[in-house]
Amino acid sequence: MKNTFGASISVTLFGESHGEAIGAVIDGMSPGIKIDYSFIDSQLGRRRPSSGTDTARQEKDEYSIVSGVFNGYTTGTPIAVIIPNKDVKSSDYSSIKDTPRPSHADYTARVKYGGYEDYRGGGHFSGRITAALVVAGAICMMALEGVGVKIGTHILKCAGVCDRPFENYLDDICCLEGKAFPVLSDVESEMTERILQAKKDCDSVGGILQTAIYGVPAGVGEPWFDTVEGVLSHALFSIGGVKGVEFGSGFSMSEMTGSQANDEFLYEDGRVITKTNNNGGINGGITNGMPIVFNCAVKPTPSILKEQKTVNLTEKRDTVLKINGRHDPAIVRRAAVVVNSVSAICIADMLAQRYGTNVFAKGGKL
Amino acid sequence: MKNTFGASISVTLFGESHGEAIGAVIDGMSPGIKIDYSFIDSQLGRRRPSSGTDTARQEKDEYSIVSGVFNGYTTGTPIAVIIPNKDVKSSDYSSIKDTPRPSHADYTARVKYGGYEDYRGGGHFSGRITAALVVAGAICMMALEGVGVKIGTHILKCAGVCDRPFENYLDDICCLEGKAFPVLSDVESEMTERILQAKKDCDSVGGILQTAIYGVPAGVGEPWFDTVEGVLSHALFSIGGVKGVEFGSGFSMSEMTGSQANDEFLYEDGRVITKTNNNGGINGGITNGMPIVFNCAVKPTPSILKEQKTVNLTEKRDTVLKINGRHDPAIVRRAAVVVNSVSAICIADMLAQRYGTNVFAKGGKL
Amino acid sequence: MKNTFGASISVTLFGESHGEAIGAVIDGMSPGIKIDYSFIDSQLGRRRPSSGTDTARQEKDEYSIVSGVFNGYTTGTPIAVIIPNKDVKSSDYSSIKDTPRPSHADYTARVKYGGYEDYRGGGHFSGRITAALVVAGAICMMALEGVGVKIGTHILKCAGVCDRPFENYLDDICCLEGKAFPVLSDVESEMTERILQAKKDCDSVGGILQTAIYGVPAGVGEPWFDTVEGVLSHALFSIGGVKGVEFGSGFSMSEMTGSQANDEFLYEDGRVITKTNNNGGINGGITNGMPIVFNCAVKPTPSILKEQKTVNLTEKRDTVLKINGRHDPAIVRRAAVVVNSVSAICIADMLAQRYGTNVFAKGGKL
Amino acid sequence: MKNTFGASISVTLFGESHGEAIGAVIDGMSPGIKIDYSFIDSQLGRRRPSSGTDTARQEKDEYSIVSGVFNGYTTGTPIAVIIPNKDVKSSDYSSIKDTPRPSHADYTARVKYGGYEDYRGGGHFSGRITAALVVAGAICMMALEGVGVKIGTHILKCAGVCDRPFENYLDDICCLEGKAFPVLSDVESEMTERILQAKKDCDSVGGILQTAIYGVPAGVGEPWFDTVEGVLSHALFSIGGVKGVEFGSGFSMSEMTGSQANDEFLYEDGRVITKTNNNGGINGGITNGMPIVFNCAVKPTPSILKEQKTVNLTEKRDTVLKINGRHDPAIVRRAAVVVNSVSAICIADMLAQRYGTNVFAKGGKL
Repeated sequence: MKNTFGASISVTLFGESHGEAIGAVIDGMSPGIKIDYSFIDSQLGRRRPSSGTDTARQEKDEYSIVSGVFNGYTTGTPIAVIIPNKDVKSSDYSSIKDTPRPSHADYTARVKYGGYEDYRGGGHFSGRITAALVVAGAICMMALEGVGVKIGTHILKCAGVCDRPFENYLDDICCLEGKAFPVLSDVESEMTERILQAKKDCDSVGGILQTAIYGVPAGVGEPWFDTVEGVLSHALFSIGGVKGVEFGSGFSMSEMTGSQANDEFLYEDGRVITKTNNNGGINGGITNGMPIVFNCAVKPTPSILKEQKTVNLTEKRDTVLKINGRHDPAIVRRAAVVVNSVSAICIADMLAQRYGTNVFAKGGKL
Repeated sequence: MKNTFGASISVTLFGESHGEAIGAVIDGMSPGIKIDYSFIDSQLGRRRPSSGTDTARQEKDEYSIVSGVFNGYTTGTPIAVIIPNKDVKSSDYSSIKDTPRPSHADYTARVKYGGYEDYRGGGHFSGRITAALVVAGAICMMALEGVGVKIGTHILKCAGVCDRPFENYLDDICCLEGKAFPVLSDVESEMTERILQAKKDCDSVGGILQTAIYGVPAGVGEPWFDTVEGVLSHALFSIGGVKGVEFGSGFSMSEMTGSQANDEFLYEDGRVITKTNNNGGINGGITNGMPIVFNCAVKPTPSILKEQKTVNLTEKRDTVLKINGRHDPAIVRRAAVVVNSVSAICIADMLAQRYGTNVFAKGGKL
Repeated sequence: MKNTFGASISVTLFGESHGEAIGAVIDGMSPGIKIDYSFIDSQLGRRRPSSGTDTARQEKDEYSIVSGVFNGYTTGTPIAVIIPNKDVKSSDYSSIKDTPRPSHADYTARVKYGGYEDYRGGGHFSGRITAALVVAGAICMMALEGVGVKIGTHILKCAGVCDRPFENYLDDICCLEGKAFPVLSDVESEMTERILQAKKDCDSVGGILQTAIYGVPAGVGEPWFDTVEGVLSHALFSIGGVKGVEFGSGFSMSEMTGSQANDEFLYEDGRVITKTNNNGGINGGITNGMPIVFNCAVKPTPSILKEQKTVNLTEKRDTVLKINGRHDPAIVRRAAVVVNSVSAICIADMLAQRYGTNVFAKGGKL
Repeated sequence: MKNTFGASISVTLFGESHGEAIGAVIDGMSPGIKIDYSFIDSQLGRRRPSSGTDTARQEKDEYSIVSGVFNGYTTGTPIAVIIPNKDVKSSDYSSIKDTPRPSHADYTARVKYGGYEDYRGGGHFSGRITAALVVAGAICMMALEGVGVKIGTHILKCAGVCDRPFENYLDDICCLEGKAFPVLSDVESEMTERILQAKKDCDSVGGILQTAIYGVPAGVGEPWFDTVEGVLSHALFSIGGVKGVEFGSGFSMSEMTGSQANDEFLYEDGRVITKTNNNGGINGGITNGMPIVFNCAVKPTPSILKEQKTVNLTEKRDTVLKINGRHDPAIVRRAAVVVNSVSAICIADMLAQRYGTNVFAKGGKL
C-alpha cells in the first residue's frame, strides 16, 4: 500500500506535477456528509500561491469529484477527486534530468525508478500533489465538523520571527480560519519581509508550524504502533520539507524534569482535564481529551536560484547547477493547510475505527 | 492491525507488565538467517535495568523462541518469542487503579477499555513490552548485518549534559556496540551523576537519542505516506516517552536558509554522496545512500516519587498521589537499544518490500 | 482498505454506473513496463457488449491514463485510469429506488448507505466498474508477459452446454487470445442460441468459467491466510455474479479418494512436475509450478424482464417489479476477461511480494 | 501481513507441528467479553481426534491465554494463546525430507523456504495449527453470541453419503452444537462406516461442509474486494484441504435461470426477508439479513498409507513413497469446527469495522 494511507478511512494519491492530472481517492467516508464546495475552494485557496512569498506558478485547481458524491452528499463509496494540470511549463525542468537538484528527490527518484520516472517539476514528489490532499482533507474536515472536531495550524516560527503559541485553543483555531497568512500574533509583515528578503537573496527559508486539534474525545488511538503520534507523524512526514514532528512540548520536554513535565489531572465541570498540556493531548499513544498539539519542522525550500554543486548522473562527474523556474522562497504558509488536511484525514480515520464507519453519518456527538 | 506493524516483515506485540508473559511474533523474515542467541542476550542486557540510574525491577528476560527457527536458522515462517514475567509485585500498583498517574497511560487506558484493562504496572502500555521488541529487533539486525546494514544510537543529551553528534558514522556505530552506557564522548560519569541527583530529588529526567543507520542503499522508501521518515517515526513513537522525532538536522534545519541546508551532491570513489547530511540520508521520503540519521526526544519518566495532583475516577474528585514502587529516574539509556530495534524492524521491512522476501536469505549485497 | 486490494501491487476502484466517471489507481507496478494501448483496447473490447447475447448499453470505454506512465512506460508511481461514463440513461432506473431488484445489491446498498447511495444502474455495484478492472488487469498482464506468465479463461459451461476443459494449457491459453467468444471446443453457436432463447424468454442464464494461469514458478503464496487460493478467491468474488470458486478439481475432488486425488510428483526434463493437476497448481496454499487452474460459478444475471415480487421500502409493503432497460441475458462471456484481469492483478502482486517491487522492470526470468 | 488476517479484529498464527508450541494472537477484540474456558475446551474437543475416523495423534491442547484477559474478561489488548506441542513423534517424518508427499505442502515449502523449513509433520502447514484458530474462533464466538450471531457447520456429504441441507437455520445450528459428529439427519453411522472402510483400504475420503451464520444484520461487507464472500473465502482457503467455496446455491446456481435463481423480497413481521436464499444471504457482496450460507469442498486427506510415486529432491530422480505415521482417513468431521472458527473471526471483524471496536463490549443489539 504505497500511496494509500488509512485503515477505515483511506486516501490514495496519484499524479505528477506536469502530467495530465493529479488526484486522490478517499474511501470509507460515512454516507450522508454534505459537501460544501465553497469550503473546498477556500481550502485550495490557502494552498495556492498568492503573493510574492510564493511561486509564480498559477493553478486554478479546478477539481472534479467524479464519484462518491450524489445529490450533494457523500454516498459512502470511494470519492475520486481529479485535478487537471494546466499551467505547466515543462521546458523549465528538462535540464535537471541528469543533474539532480540538491535536497530534492530528483536523485532518489532516479535510483528508485531507474530513469523511468517523470522528472518534470519533481514528478510524483511535487508539492503539487498536495492539492489533492487538501481536497481530501476538506472532505474529512466536513465530517469532523459534525462531531465537533476542529483543526488549526499557524506559523510558529519563520525566518527567525516567532508567533505566540496556542493559548485558548478553540478561539485560536477559529481566528486562524479567517486568515490567509496564518499567524496568531502581529507578525505577518515581519515574516513576509524576511521571506521576501530571502527571495531577493536567491535563497529560501523554512519554519515551524504548530497545529491544534480540538474536540477529539479521550480513548482514541492504540498503545503500540498505531499511537496517535505514530499515525499522525507517519502521514505528516509525507508533506514535502517536513523533517521533524514533535508533540506537546516535544524536544523541550526532554530538558524538563518529571515534576515539571507531568500534566496533572483535575476535574473541571465534571470532566477530567490536565492543568498543563506538555503531552499534547496524548498519553500512551491515546488521546486524553485535551487538544492534540504538535509542531512540524519545515526545511527551507530546496529550490534556490543560487548556483549549487551537484553531479551529472549520465556523465558521472561533478558539475554545478543553476535552477531557473518558479519557486517558493518559503512554503510554510502554503504548507499550513496541508498539515490541517493530513491531520483531518488521520483523525477521521481513527474515529471511524473506534466508532464505526457510519460515525459521521449522523453528525451527532461521539 | 492495531499491535502489528510492517508490510513484508511485520511484528505483532502482546502482553501486559504483570500478566503471564509478553512476546512478539515476527513474520515475513527470510529463511536461512542464523540465530545468534548470545547476540539476543546482549541486546536484552542493554535494555535491562543494570545500575542506580534504572528501576530496581529485575527481569532475567528468559525468552523462548517457540516457532519459526529450526536447527538454528530462521525457517521463513512466523517467529514467536515468549518472555514470561517473573519479578512481578502487583501490590505496588493496586492503589493506582482509580487514581491515574499524571503523564502515564492509566487514564487513557481506562477510557479506551472501560475499566477492563489490566492496570497493574501500566499493563499493555508498560515499557516491559519493549523486551519483546528488542528480541524482534535483534533478529532483524542479524538479517541486516548480512547485507551490510548497521545501526547505532547514543545519548545525544541528557539532564543538560551533551554528547558529541555522530562524526564518522561507521566507526561511531561500532564503538557504541561495546558500550553499556551509549555515549560517544567522555560524558558518562557526568550524565550518570545528574540522573542520580534527579533520583535523589524524587524526580526524573529525559533526553535526546541520536541514531545512525549505515549501509542502506539509495532508492528505498516511497514518495507518499510510506516515506522512510514516516515509517520510522510511526514505529518510534510507540516507544514510551518518545515525544519528538527529527531527521537529519530536523528542527534546526527550519532555521537555516536553503543555501545552508541543501546537501550538495558529489562523486566520491565513483559513488554519489552528499557533502553534508542535513537531510539525514533521505530526500523525498527515499534513501539517498547516505547514513539515515535521526533524533528522538524522550520525555522524563513520568513515574516520580514526588507527590502529584490527580483525580479519583470512581469518586469523581481531585486528589493527590504519591507513587511507590520501582522506577527509572531516566530511561534514555535503556531506550537506546529499543530505538535500534525498532529501526532494524522498519529497515528490514522496507528492504524486503523492495528486494523481495528472500532478500536476506543469501546474505549477499543489495 | 475497502475498495483497495493488494499488498505490493494494489488496485483501488472508484465510480458509479451513471456518475461522471469510473476508474482505478494501480500502485506498486514496476517502472519500465511498456504500455501497449492496443492491447488495453482489445481487452476492453472483450468486456464490451457486442452482440445479441449482451446488454444494449454501448460504452466506448475511452479511458485516460492520467498518471504513472511517461514516454510510454510505467514510471513506478501510481497509474490512475479514468473512464468517463457516456451512454447513460438514468431515467431507466429511477423507479427502482424504492423497489429493490431481487438478487441485486439495491437493497443491501440501501441498508448499508442509508439511502445516500447512487442507486442509478446499480451505482458503485455495477458491472460497469469492471471496465476499470480490465485496464488495471491489462497493465498487469503486460508486466506478467515479460516474466513468462500467461492467463486464459473459457466458458466451461453455459445454459447447459459444456466446453471441454483445459488440456494443453499453453496452447489453449494462446488459442483463447484470439477469440471473442471464449470456448475451446466447437460450442459457440449452441451456447449463443441458448442464451438468446433465455433472452427471448425474458430470462437469463449463468455459467462456469475455467481459468488457467501458466508460468508461475513454484514457491509463490503463503501457508496461512494469503494462500494463492485465498488471495485469488478474495478478489474473484468481487466480480458481480460469482458465487463459487474452486481450484483444480474442486468440488469433484471432495468425492474422490486420496489415491485418486493425489497428484504424484515426477521429474520431466529435470523439472519437478505432477502427473495430474487435481490441486490446480497449489499445495498448502503455495504454487507448485504446475498451471494454476480454477473455476468460477457465475449466477444468471439477476436483471430479467419477467415480473418479480419485491418490496416497497418506503411504503413498507410487498409489491411487484417489472424491470425495463438494457441488460445481459448472460454475462459469462463478458466476465471471462474480468476474471483474467483480476487474476493478473493478484498474481502480479504475489510475484512482487516474493521477488521485490522491481521484479517486472527487467522483464527477465523469475 | 502473511500470517495475519483481519482489519479491525485480526488473528496472527504461528507454530509448527513438531515445534515447541503453536499459537495465535487475537487483536482488536472489544474489552469486557467474559471468557468461558469450558466453551473453548469443548470447541477444541470437536477438533481433537476422537475416534477411529481420525488420526491416532493425541494432543490434550492445554492452551494458555498469556495476555489480553484479566479477571476473566477481555481487556481489549492482544490476546495471546499458546498451545505447547506434546505428543510429538518426529522420527515418523524424517524420511520425507527429500521425498515430498503428493498433494501435501512438502514440495512447495521446500521451494519457498529453500530447505530451511521445519519439515516435520508438515511444519507450519500442519492442520495442528488450526487448534490455535479454534481458540481464536471460540473467543470471537463469545463476542458474537452477545450480539445474537450464531454459527453452525455440518457434513453435507462425505464418502458418497449425503446429509440434508439446512432447513430451519437457527434450530439446525442449535442442534449441531450438541453433536460430536455434526450431521443434521441420521447418517452418522453410514458415513463413519465408509470412512473406516477407506482407512482399511489404506486410503482416505473428502467431503463437503455446509455452514450457516445466523443473525448478521443487513448492510455488512463492502462492494469491491472486501465482499462478505471474498473475506470469508480468503480465510476459509487457509484450512488445509479446502479446494472450493460456494455461497448459497453456488455452482448449482450457475445452472439455473434468473427467474429460478433470484431471491424475491417480501415483508415478514415488518422485516424484509427473501423467499428463497440462493444467494446465501449476500447481495453485491453485502449481507441482506438472511442467514449467510456456504459450502466448503474438502479434498481427501493426502496422507494415505498406499505406496505413491514421488521424487527424491536431493538425488533428483523419481522414487516411491510409503507413508507411515498417524493420519486421518477423513478430516471433514474435525474441519467443521475450524470452519466455524474461521467464520466467527471474519464476521466479528466485519461487524467491528462497521460498528466500531467496542461493538461487542456491551453485548447489545446491532
